[in-house]
Amino acid sequence: MSKLLQRAGVSARALQISDRVESFVREKIVPYERDPRLGSHGPSEPLADEMKALARAAGVMTPHILDNGDHLTQRETAAVLIRSGLSILGPLACHTCAPDEGNMYLLGKVASPELKQRFLPRMINGSMRSAFFMTEPAEEGGAGSDPSMMLTTCKMDGNHWVVNGRKTFITGADGAGMGIIMAKSDDGACMFLVDLPNPAIRIERVLDTIDNSMPGGHAVIAIENLRVPADQMLGESGEGFKYAQVRLAPARLSHCMRWLGACVRANEIATDYANRRMAFGKPLIDHEGVGFMLAENLMDLKQAELMIYWCADVLDTGAQGGAESSMAKVAVSEALMRVADRCVQCMGGQGVAGDTMVEQVFREIRAFRIYDGPTEVHKWSLAKKIKRDWKTEHAV
Amino acid sequence: MSKLLQRAGVSARALQISDRVESFVREKIVPYERDPRLGSHGPSEPLADEMKALARAAGVMTPHILDNGDHLTQRETAAVLIRSGLSILGPLACHTCAPDEGNMYLLGKVASPELKQRFLPRMINGSMRSAFFMTEPAEEGGAGSDPSMMLTTCKMDGNHWVVNGRKTFITGADGAGMGIIMAKSDDGACMFLVDLPNPAIRIERVLDTIDNSMPGGHAVIAIENLRVPADQMLGESGEGFKYAQVRLAPARLSHCMRWLGACVRANEIATDYANRRMAFGKPLIDHEGVGFMLAENLMDLKQAELMIYWCADVLDTGAQGGAESSMAKVAVSEALMRVADRCVQCMGGQGVAGDTMVEQVFREIRAFRIYDGPTEVHKWSLAKKIKRDWKTEHAV
Amino acid sequence: MSKLLQRAGVSARALQISDRVESFVREKIVPYERDPRLGSHGPSEPLADEMKALARAAGVMTPHILDNGDHLTQRETAAVLIRSGLSILGPLACHTCAPDEGNMYLLGKVASPELKQRFLPRMINGSMRSAFFMTEPAEEGGAGSDPSMMLTTCKMDGNHWVVNGRKTFITGADGAGMGIIMAKSDDGACMFLVDLPNPAIRIERVLDTIDNSMPGGHAVIAIENLRVPADQMLGESGEGFKYAQVRLAPARLSHCMRWLGACVRANEIATDYANRRMAFGKPLIDHEGVGFMLAENLMDLKQAELMIYWCADVLDTGAQGGAESSMAKVAVSEALMRVADRCVQCMGGQGVAGDTMVEQVFREIRAFRIYDGPTEVHKWSLAKKIKRDWKTEHAV
Amino acid sequence: MSKLLQRAGVSARALQISDRVESFVREKIVPYERDPRLGSHGPSEPLADEMKALARAAGVMTPHILDNGDHLTQRETAAVLIRSGLSILGPLACHTCAPDEGNMYLLGKVASPELKQRFLPRMINGSMRSAFFMTEPAEEGGAGSDPSMMLTTCKMDGNHWVVNGRKTFITGADGAGMGIIMAKSDDGACMFLVDLPNPAIRIERVLDTIDNSMPGGHAVIAIENLRVPADQMLGESGEGFKYAQVRLAPARLSHCMRWLGACVRANEIATDYANRRMAFGKPLIDHEGVGFMLAENLMDLKQAELMIYWCADVLDTGAQGGAESSMAKVAVSEALMRVADRCVQCMGGQGVAGDTMVEQVFREIRAFRIYDGPTEVHKWSLAKKIKRDWKTEHAV
Repeated sequence: MSKLLQRAGVSARALQISDRVESFVREKIVPYERDPRLGSHGPSEPLADEMKALARAAGVMTPHILDNGDHLTQRETAAVLIRSGLSILGPLACHTCAPDEGNMYLLGKVASPELKQRFLPRMINGSMRSAFFMTEPAEEGGAGSDPSMMLTTCKMDGNHWVVNGRKTFITGADGAGMGIIMAKSDDGACMFLVDLPNPAIRIERVLDTIDNSMPGGHAVIAIENLRVPADQMLGESGEGFKYAQVRLAPARLSHCMRWLGACVRANEIATDYANRRMAFGKPLIDHEGVGFMLAENLMDLKQAELMIYWCADVLDTGAQGGAESSMAKVAVSEALMRVADRCVQCMGGQGVAGDTMVEQVFREIRAFRIYDGPTEVHKWSLAKKIKRDWKTEHAV
Repeated sequence: MSKLLQRAGVSARALQISDRVESFVREKIVPYERDPRLGSHGPSEPLADEMKALARAAGVMTPHILDNGDHLTQRETAAVLIRSGLSILGPLACHTCAPDEGNMYLLGKVASPELKQRFLPRMINGSMRSAFFMTEPAEEGGAGSDPSMMLTTCKMDGNHWVVNGRKTFITGADGAGMGIIMAKSDDGACMFLVDLPNPAIRIERVLDTIDNSMPGGHAVIAIENLRVPADQMLGESGEGFKYAQVRLAPARLSHCMRWLGACVRANEIATDYANRRMAFGKPLIDHEGVGFMLAENLMDLKQAELMIYWCADVLDTGAQGGAESSMAKVAVSEALMRVADRCVQCMGGQGVAGDTMVEQVFREIRAFRIYDGPTEVHKWSLAKKIKRDWKTEHAV
Repeated sequence: MSKLLQRAGVSARALQISDRVESFVREKIVPYERDPRLGSHGPSEPLADEMKALARAAGVMTPHILDNGDHLTQRETAAVLIRSGLSILGPLACHTCAPDEGNMYLLGKVASPELKQRFLPRMINGSMRSAFFMTEPAEEGGAGSDPSMMLTTCKMDGNHWVVNGRKTFITGADGAGMGIIMAKSDDGACMFLVDLPNPAIRIERVLDTIDNSMPGGHAVIAIENLRVPADQMLGESGEGFKYAQVRLAPARLSHCMRWLGACVRANEIATDYANRRMAFGKPLIDHEGVGFMLAENLMDLKQAELMIYWCADVLDTGAQGGAESSMAKVAVSEALMRVADRCVQCMGGQGVAGDTMVEQVFREIRAFRIYDGPTEVHKWSLAKKIKRDWKTEHAV
Repeated sequence: MSKLLQRAGVSARALQISDRVESFVREKIVPYERDPRLGSHGPSEPLADEMKALARAAGVMTPHILDNGDHLTQRETAAVLIRSGLSILGPLACHTCAPDEGNMYLLGKVASPELKQRFLPRMINGSMRSAFFMTEPAEEGGAGSDPSMMLTTCKMDGNHWVVNGRKTFITGADGAGMGIIMAKSDDGACMFLVDLPNPAIRIERVLDTIDNSMPGGHAVIAIENLRVPADQMLGESGEGFKYAQVRLAPARLSHCMRWLGACVRANEIATDYANRRMAFGKPLIDHEGVGFMLAENLMDLKQAELMIYWCADVLDTGAQGGAESSMAKVAVSEALMRVADRCVQCMGGQGVAGDTMVEQVFREIRAFRIYDGPTEVHKWSLAKKIKRDWKTEHAV
């Protein structure tokens, strides 16, 4: 078990689950990391199915959701999801990956019993992937970091909604069995649950991106006269941004969890390399230039972990945690970028070669600093909050 | 009460004490910050006595030590000492300052009942300052960051020890009523408790340093044939480094606590300025260049606080916490340097002027990155530990 | 002669002058750095006069202005002013300091023959200091980084102008023999040359700032019904901002020059220390943690020097160089902050003590990042320029 | 023509060539950037041949070597190679790429007339690629950053040398027509020129690396009883490291040149995006968070350019420039990493997608910080030089 990851303050049941997940990932999934069937948009479906079968056998499929459908607390989820990330393939195998984890969470919170029944079981048992259709192409001026710019529309037509628009960066759309689609009605933002594939939802292309851990990659999508039965709307018309908020903070935090796990593992690989590789008469780690980088990793990893648990505790009080999850997202992603960069640097040529997971972790974390809101957008919203708080405090 | 500082996870008694301390510091001590009696080596003795009298009246003298002589836990101490630091003068008023706080802790752990009785009461009631004589001048090749280079000697002569050597950076020596002196015997390092002033302990000069919060400043000292009765040795001959270790981690962490408080306050001042001052048609905070800096402060302050509580919890388990306190010291001091620097920058010309506490906090934190072990020494020892741990793990 | 500073590409006459300046500063001025007559607002007047007498004797008074009144080119000036900065006291001794250097430049470019005759000779021979009254107090919403917010007014009354307002951060006002005052008439900004002291120009106080190299410090000033004869207006009414532009870029660049010299010297001191001081069994420089910092200093110093010469060349073409001098100011000040910080850090406790010039250089450079426009204001104006250039390029 | 790139101080002939190169790259090569024939190890051979034919037609094949075989000066080469890098494909098309550029330089300096005649013409006209076999696998403890660890051997056997060993990260070996192989004889390091492919030089695999601009990628190679005629040794036996030094600094600097060009272009793309894309009610560039990044890019690009020309000038004096090229390599690669990172960040999701060159530039620059000596190795050797210089200066 990783000695870097903290056990104090984690419940017994969460420790038990997370130990099982860690053993599973290290023993069963790490060997797949060099599997030639890994393609440039993540593992092929048969390979994914093979790993998922192992996860079910090991009792670690969707391990943060209990048999009765309850979710672990956010603090407990952190302990589990961090361990699932010790291999980049781990979240896929255990189905703790994005966007499924967030989609399951959202359905659990907002969906009607009928919609839950229809979609959730296949998501929880990992037999179906899902996608979340929110962001839109820049060239058309659609919603990117600023969701208010959403251009996709939905209009009632009898007892159906008709959806039209284009989406981009839709993670996992290629190969997904269901999708949550955001569009604007006259009331405001709406969400719909739809079965996939659907002839009205056309995958124009899968983007060629710097990261490649997400099954299905990130797709550009055209939605043309998609007709959705009214009862497949999630919640109420016009409440879409409110539901997005429900999903937002936990999903954002779960990214932090998984990527912390990946960086803990990258740091193990770099540490091992630095202890074995000689240069200028001594092991690399005896060069302060390298040893200091590993020491800095220790601190950054610890700080990332502490921020995750702190934010998890805030969410576990029932707070929405917008500001706290922004703080955690920025602090963790920037810390992990430094960690990944140092792992690469410590390993020299080996660090930029695909022979270990380190090179991919570096690329994934680079994307992470942008996905789910670039650092700058979060700082911007934090600055707004600081101003609001100051005004409240200085109001008459 | 500061909304930035966390209350969750802090015991009721510690919250009660820390609230009392915060109110006291904000209401009674902050007004002294612009007192003309503040000199370049900290407040004059009469001024210090005046503030201490207020602290006694408010029931916040040495607030982390209970009436029965017990210390609060480290976690509880953190809650209290952070608040005492909300003014740079707070730790002096409440006698939670360095090196007294660490000296009291050491005596509580190691001194004989007789030595405790002789020295501790006056320290705890704040009527006597103390000093810790360890570091030695660079030009003679003495002990700086590397304590094994200690040149000061002690030799038995009858029932006395005779001590000779030179010390530098001895904080608070000028004006102290007692001192803990480190010297080397044939057995190894030793510690002695001595009354001050003493004719054999000559203050050559008080250094002119970038910081000026510590009463008495930092002195260069000559010790010439100082005779110490054998029963004023602290513990055993040759065990001095072991005792230094006892003092080390908690004292190091208490620096982090006090300076976090100071930076929380500096951030309040900078935030207030940024909300009031206009430039280019809008308040500074509406400029992302300023608003982002304040957002970054939020994150750095939170991470510093989390590292402090994490390390406190490790110490509260009874562990020596060498590595953890190194990690906390580096992470906190570097984070606070960034915070203090941004506060200065947000305030423009006002940031480098002494009209607010911000300018001094910046200078103090600069020194903090060196005092108690420069960042580089801690990284060096962490790298050694990483290597040791790797070897243990990979041993047959 | 410093081997770090480049000689290639510098004219023979400039090399000759700059060698003379370097020898003078190193041999005659450096010894004054520990003179007890140095006060907290820079050297006393008698001490300054003593050093200036030495400069005259050595033929290095105002060395960048030739006997015929011509200025060296900016490239030549760089070679000279950098060397004058090798001691913090050097620019004062050689009268290459701010704000005098910029004020002389401005008068040389804009003043009428009568005003030149009246003021310049005493400025050039160093017998009179001068001040530039532009910035205004934040608490009143006056002109700081945004000069358009100027509140000080001037109104014609007969053949005099009557000036009213408050100024702050007026460097060298205390003790100056002349001042250039900015105020707003109905036409726009105006500049006036006035003899000092003057009963209508009251020094409210001298600020207590982080830096203390500037003779006279930085003052807060009240101007109350100051009457200035009309012929003491510099140039035309309403053209004040245009003249400020003339002064702007060269004055900004001259700061970079002097502070580069100071950091070259601080780096020499730190390098010497790192080669002599032992720790953990070897000289500090053999620790990569220290050696790398010195290597980074080499690169930052070189980059700062290259930026200065590049910007000087732009100014020497006759261009106003607003963007280039912003780039140079930001790049140089930020690089020198890193250099000064590393020098402090390499020297441990000695780095934060006033025994060497390093501690002061660190404080001065911190202020430099704000004086003459904080980093953020320059980035802001560069971003505006980038946008303008893009628009020009993409215009039909 | 790029307005960012400086023309002052560049000779007329170099400006003429570099303008031709810039026009060629922008007009003819940029369109190839989205060509589907681009594979994961750079362009296919037919695609490369197609681009090279265009370069010959445009008169920009190996443009830094004149018709008479003379090389441009380093300063002139900088002007040309920077422009060739404006597309990642440019250096390949113009045959200014690594390792060919350095190999041609080395042959020009060291090879016998016969060897020059045999190999150079095909290299200069771009019809043959070459490789440089130096670095060796880490797992065997071979030469990485520390060339003294070389394990590959060469032994005389009659009038042939027999070479055995393994090499890794051999750029362009796959598809090369000639190779320069380093091995150790009893005399020391040796270099051999060999025709490729050769049955005794087996490509074990081409590494999967973070970068993919180099044709042929980076290969792992086994050399098994390779027999090289004695007259194909480059220079003398045992002088291999000396020749490596000849190649070293110019080759290192040429990396800086090409990647500066690539980052200038990435910055153009990001600037264009920031001016067009709206978010939160205004173009991205009007958000200081974005505008400041572009301003910082301006400064970093300028500093990189200045370092390159400075180092080129040193080399043009005939100096070996080891320290200067180390300084340039570190300063330029780290500056360009910041630039590339900011370009990605400004573009949000578009920055991590392969639709523009920005995403690839980011990955290439990450590798550049390691290739040709990781940053830390250069700092280490600079620290050694600082120590040597100090010793020289302080010797009796």
